[in-house]
Amino acid sequence: MTTVSLDSLNAADEAQFVTALGDIYEHAPWVARAVYAQRPFATLAALNEAMTAAVRAAPREQRLALIKGHPDLAGKAARAGAMTAHSKAEQASAGLDRLTDAEFDEFHRRNDAYREKFGFPFIVCVRRHGKDSILRQFERRLRNDAAAETEAALAEIFRIVALRLDQRVEARDKLPVHGRLSTHVLDTHAGAPAAGVKIELLELSAGGERCLIASAVTNRDGRTDRPLIGGRPLPIGRYELRFHVGDYFARLGTPRADPPFLDVVPVAFAIAEPEAHYHVPLLVTPWSYATYRGS
Amino acid sequence: MTTVSLDSLNAADEAQFVTALGDIYEHAPWVARAVYAQRPFATLAALNEAMTAAVRAAPREQRLALIKGHPDLAGKAARAGAMTAHSKAEQASAGLDRLTDAEFDEFHRRNDAYREKFGFPFIVCVRRHGKDSILRQFERRLRNDAAAETEAALAEIFRIVALRLDQRVEARDKLPVHGRLSTHVLDTHAGAPAAGVKIELLELSAGGERCLIASAVTNRDGRTDRPLIGGRPLPIGRYELRFHVGDYFARLGTPRADPPFLDVVPVAFAIAEPEAHYHVPLLVTPWSYATYRGS
Amino acid sequence: MTTVSLDSLNAADEAQFVTALGDIYEHAPWVARAVYAQRPFATLAALNEAMTAAVRAAPREQRLALIKGHPDLAGKAARAGAMTAHSKAEQASAGLDRLTDAEFDEFHRRNDAYREKFGFPFIVCVRRHGKDSILRQFERRLRNDAAAETEAALAEIFRIVALRLDQRVEARDKLPVHGRLSTHVLDTHAGAPAAGVKIELLELSAGGERCLIASAVTNRDGRTDRPLIGGRPLPIGRYELRFHVGDYFARLGTPRADPPFLDVVPVAFAIAEPEAHYHVPLLVTPWSYATYRGS
Amino acid sequence: MTTVSLDSLNAADEAQFVTALGDIYEHAPWVARAVYAQRPFATLAALNEAMTAAVRAAPREQRLALIKGHPDLAGKAARAGAMTAHSKAEQASAGLDRLTDAEFDEFHRRNDAYREKFGFPFIVCVRRHGKDSILRQFERRLRNDAAAETEAALAEIFRIVALRLDQRVEARDKLPVHGRLSTHVLDTHAGAPAAGVKIELLELSAGGERCLIASAVTNRDGRTDRPLIGGRPLPIGRYELRFHVGDYFARLGTPRADPPFLDVVPVAFAIAEPEAHYHVPLLVTPWSYATYRGS
Repeated sequence: MTTVSLDSLNAADEAQFVTALGDIYEHAPWVARAVYAQRPFATLAALNEAMTAAVRAAPREQRLALIKGHPDLAGKAARAGAMTAHSKAEQASAGLDRLTDAEFDEFHRRNDAYREKFGFPFIVCVRRHGKDSILRQFERRLRNDAAAETEAALAEIFRIVALRLDQRVEARDKLPVHGRLSTHVLDTHAGAPAAGVKIELLELSAGGERCLIASAVTNRDGRTDRPLIGGRPLPIGRYELRFHVGDYFARLGTPRADPPFLDVVPVAFAIAEPEAHYHVPLLVTPWSYATYRGS
Repeated sequence: MTTVSLDSLNAADEAQFVTALGDIYEHAPWVARAVYAQRPFATLAALNEAMTAAVRAAPREQRLALIKGHPDLAGKAARAGAMTAHSKAEQASAGLDRLTDAEFDEFHRRNDAYREKFGFPFIVCVRRHGKDSILRQFERRLRNDAAAETEAALAEIFRIVALRLDQRVEARDKLPVHGRLSTHVLDTHAGAPAAGVKIELLELSAGGERCLIASAVTNRDGRTDRPLIGGRPLPIGRYELRFHVGDYFARLGTPRADPPFLDVVPVAFAIAEPEAHYHVPLLVTPWSYATYRGS
Repeated sequence: MTTVSLDSLNAADEAQFVTALGDIYEHAPWVARAVYAQRPFATLAALNEAMTAAVRAAPREQRLALIKGHPDLAGKAARAGAMTAHSKAEQASAGLDRLTDAEFDEFHRRNDAYREKFGFPFIVCVRRHGKDSILRQFERRLRNDAAAETEAALAEIFRIVALRLDQRVEARDKLPVHGRLSTHVLDTHAGAPAAGVKIELLELSAGGERCLIASAVTNRDGRTDRPLIGGRPLPIGRYELRFHVGDYFARLGTPRADPPFLDVVPVAFAIAEPEAHYHVPLLVTPWSYATYRGS
Repeated sequence: MTTVSLDSLNAADEAQFVTALGDIYEHAPWVARAVYAQRPFATLAALNEAMTAAVRAAPREQRLALIKGHPDLAGKAARAGAMTAHSKAEQASAGLDRLTDAEFDEFHRRNDAYREKFGFPFIVCVRRHGKDSILRQFERRLRNDAAAETEAALAEIFRIVALRLDQRVEARDKLPVHGRLSTHVLDTHAGAPAAGVKIELLELSAGGERCLIASAVTNRDGRTDRPLIGGRPLPIGRYELRFHVGDYFARLGTPRADPPFLDVVPVAFAIAEPEAHYHVPLLVTPWSYATYRGS
C-alpha cells in the first residue's frame, strides 16, 4: 500500500492532496477537498478530526449519499468485483470471503432486510468484528429507528476512515485504532519465565468452527516476540489460546504423572473491545494453573 | 448382578462356596476350591489375598492355563459371543465395543502379535483404561520378555478379580479398587460457592473424539451431589471439564463485558491413577480463574 | 459444666425444670417457668423458640427488668465478683479480663455513657466478638434511639441464651450458634496435599497486639485434625494465619533459593460472621501461593 | 559524587587517569596505573575486566596487601573515622551504622575471629546484603580454608569495584550490578489494573525488627512509577510487601463484609539474588488473592 507523510500532505497543492486522500472516504473525494484549506495539520488526529467535522457539517443529503456509496456487505458486490480495493481487503478480514453458501444467503437476506428498512446498505467496520459478531450487529441495528441507524452508520464510517488514515499517512502520532493481544507464561514450579512453550491462538465461531490464526513460541522472558494480534483492531469474538505445557515440562524433566495431568492447556475467552490491550497470561505448574485478564 | 454376603460365604458348604465364587477367576473354579478350607474370612481383603496366594502357589502350568483361559481383547471372541458375561461388560466400559472397523483391525493385529510372541492372550483390566491407554499398554507390554509379561498378565488378573469380588461380595470392608473424580466451583468474585453452574465431563481420545460421559449442576456448596466418576476405577485417559460460568454470572447480574470475557471454561487434564481421588476445582471471577489437582 | 438431656427435661416436674433452666436467662427464672406447660419439646430449637416467645410476650416492664438484670460489661461487677459464673466465662472469652488499666477506664466510660443514655447496661454476646469489635459495637449502638436499642439488647440476650442452651441441654439437634475456621494446604508443586506444615493462628488487635490463639500441623490430607476454631461462635475480628512452608519444602528437598523466596506465609483476614464456616486454604509452591475464602 | 566519562578517560594522560580511578580499588592506585596502557576501552565492561585481570596478574603479596588494605567491617575503623568515604557509604547501606551495642560487640567478635584465622579483614560487598545476611556470611566464610577465603575476599572486592566503577564512569554500557524489585496490582474482581493502592515495603530482620524502606501508590496501570528498589543491588534478606487493598475496594464501593475479609495484604518473601529482577505482583479480589515471583 502506498503511504504518504503528513509533512508532504501539508506541503501539497489541492490536486495532490485530493489525489492522496480522495478515496479515504468511500466514493467521496469532497471530504478531502473540504479540509484542504485547513492545512497544515499538526497531527494525524487533527487531520482526522477535520475530516469528521466536514462530514458532520455537510448537508443531510450529502451525508446520506456518502452512506449509500458503501458496498453491500457480503452482498452481490463482493462477488461481482465492484468493491473498492479497500473494502475488499477489509471484508476479507472478518472471514466474509469464506462464507458458505448458506451463510452467504443468510447475510444476503439480512442485508436486504436492512436496506429495505433504512434505504442504505449495512455498514460496519469489519476489521473490528469476527463473523459471529457481525451477525449480532445486524440483529441489534435492525431494531434501530432511522435516525439512530444513520448515526450508527456514520460512526462506523468514521472508524473505517480512521483505520485507513492510520495506514495511509505517516505521522508522529498514531490514531488509537489498534488493539493488542499478548500473553506470558510463568512457570511457578521453577519460579521463572517458561521459555520455549508453543502457543496457538484459535478463533472460535458459534457454529463450532475453530480457525488457527496465530502461533508462537515463548522467548526467554516467557513472552512472545510479537503480540499474538497487534497493529490492527482486535476482532470482537471468541478465541482459544492453547498452551503446550506438557512438552515444556517434559523437556525440563519435571516429575510428572503418566499421562501428565496437564498437557495442552486451553484458555477460552472473548474479546469485546477491539482497541484495548488484552493480556492473557498463564501461571502454571504440572498440577495447577491460573489465568486472568491482565494488563 | 447377584451378590452374596461374606457371612453366608463363611457359613457355606464347599459346593455352595464354589458355586458362589467359582467364576471369579475366569474358567478357574479351582481357585475358589483351594481357599475354601481357610474359612472364615474376617474381611473381604483376607478372602482376596487368600485367592491371590492360591494362584501364586499353584504349579506354573496351572497359572499359565489360567492366563490362557482369558478371552482375546477385542478379538474374535468379542464378536462370536464366547466371552463370559463378566468379560463382556468390562470390555464395553473402555469403548471396545464401539471400535471402528479400522480400530478393530488394529486391535486384532496387536493381539495376534502379542499371542504370537507370548503364546497367551493380552490381558488387561479394561475398567482402568480408556481406549488410548489400552493401545499404549499393548505397545509397552509387547516389549517385555516372557517372564515379565507372565507376571504382568497375572497382575492384571488380580485387578480384574478384585473388582469382581468387590461387586459380588457384601462385607464390612471394601477393596481399594475405586477412584473418584470430583469438582467444586468457588466464586471468588462474590466470596461464596457458585451454585447452579452446569458442568460437563468429556472423555477425549487421541483421534480427536470428544465423548460426553457425565454432566451435573453445582449445589449450594458449589459441589456436585455425586462424584463425576465414582464407584469404579477411573479410566486412565484424557478428559475435559467444561464449566458454564458465563450463564452463572449472567444469572447473578455480575457486571461483565459483551461478549463476556469468560463463558464456558474448559479444563483439560489426564487421569493416571485409576484408584485415586482426583479433585479438580475451579476458582473463578468474570475475569480470571485457577484450577489445580486438589484433594 | 452440668448438662441435662432434653428427654429428662420433658419428663421433669416444674421444680426440676426450673432448677435446670432457671438461670439460662440471667436472674430471670420466670422464663423457664413460663414455658414449662408447653412440654414436651420435640427439639432444642423448639424449646429455645418457646423461651424467646415467652420473653416477647411478657409485659414491657418485665422485659426491661430482664435487660437491667445483666451485669455491666467490664464494669465494676467484673472486679467485684458479682457476676454469675456464666457471665464471667463469657466475658473472659473476648479478652475482657485482660484489659489494661487504660482500656478498663475506656470501657468503663463508654459503659457509663451507655447506661446514662438508655438506663440499662450495655449487653452484647461477647463470645461473638473480639475486643476491637466490642468497642465498635459500643460506638454504633450508642447512636441508636431507645426503642432500637431495647430491641438490640434483647437480640443479644437471645444470642447469649441460645449459646447457654446449646451447652446445657443434650438433644438430637444443635442450635446454629457455632462457626468454624478451617484451612487446607495444597502443594501445587508436587500436586498433593502438604503434610506436616506447621500453622499458627493469631488474633490481631487494632492496637497492634498479636495473640497466638491456636496452632496445628497439617495431616496427610493437608488439613488440620480439628478446626482452628470450632464448637463456638467465631469472634468478629482480625486474624493472621501463618503457614510455615519454608520448613515443609526444606524437608521435602524441593529446590529453592537461599534464603528461600517463601518461608512463613502470613495470611491476614477478618471474620465478620460468627456462625459461618470460614475455610481459608493455601495453594503453594516455593515461588507462589494463592488463598481465598473457600467453603 | 563526581563522575567522569569513559571518553575523557580514554583521552586522559596517565596522571589524570590515575587521579580519576586511583581510589576505585581501596588504597591501590597501582591497579589503575597497570591498565592505563590498554586504553582506549571500548566499553565500561572492558575497563572493569582489564582492572580485574591486573589484580589477578599481580604478585600474590600485592593481592594480599590489597585485601589487607580494606577496613574492618563495623570494626573500630567505623567509629574512628579512618574509612574512605566510599567504604563509609557502602557500610551504612546494610544498616551497619545502626548496630546496637550488643550487635556491635557481636560483629566485633566475629571480625576478630576472622582476622585471627585469616590474617586479613573480613570483606563483603555490603550493598548486596542486609544485616542478617552479613552475619550468615561471617558464619559460612569462617569455615573456609585460607586459599578459598582469599579467593572469596577477591570476589567481593571485584563486586565492590564494579559498583564503584558503575557509579563513577559514564559510558554507553552499564555493568550488570543492579537489581530491581517491582510489583503490580491487578483487580481480578473488576478485570482491570488496581490504581491508587498504597504499598509499603518493609525490611525484616531475624531479630523481629521491621524497617519501612519504601512506599508507593499504584498508577493507572496498577504499577508503581518507579521500582520499589532499583539502581542498586537488592540486599539479600527478608522483606514484606503490604498492599492496602481494603481502602482500595472501599473507594470503589465493591460489596464487602464488615469488617472486610481482606484489608492489608502482607506478602513476605526473601531476596537471594542481588542483581536479579524480582517482580512480586498481587492478583486480588475482596475474597482472594495470589502472588508469585514473576518476571
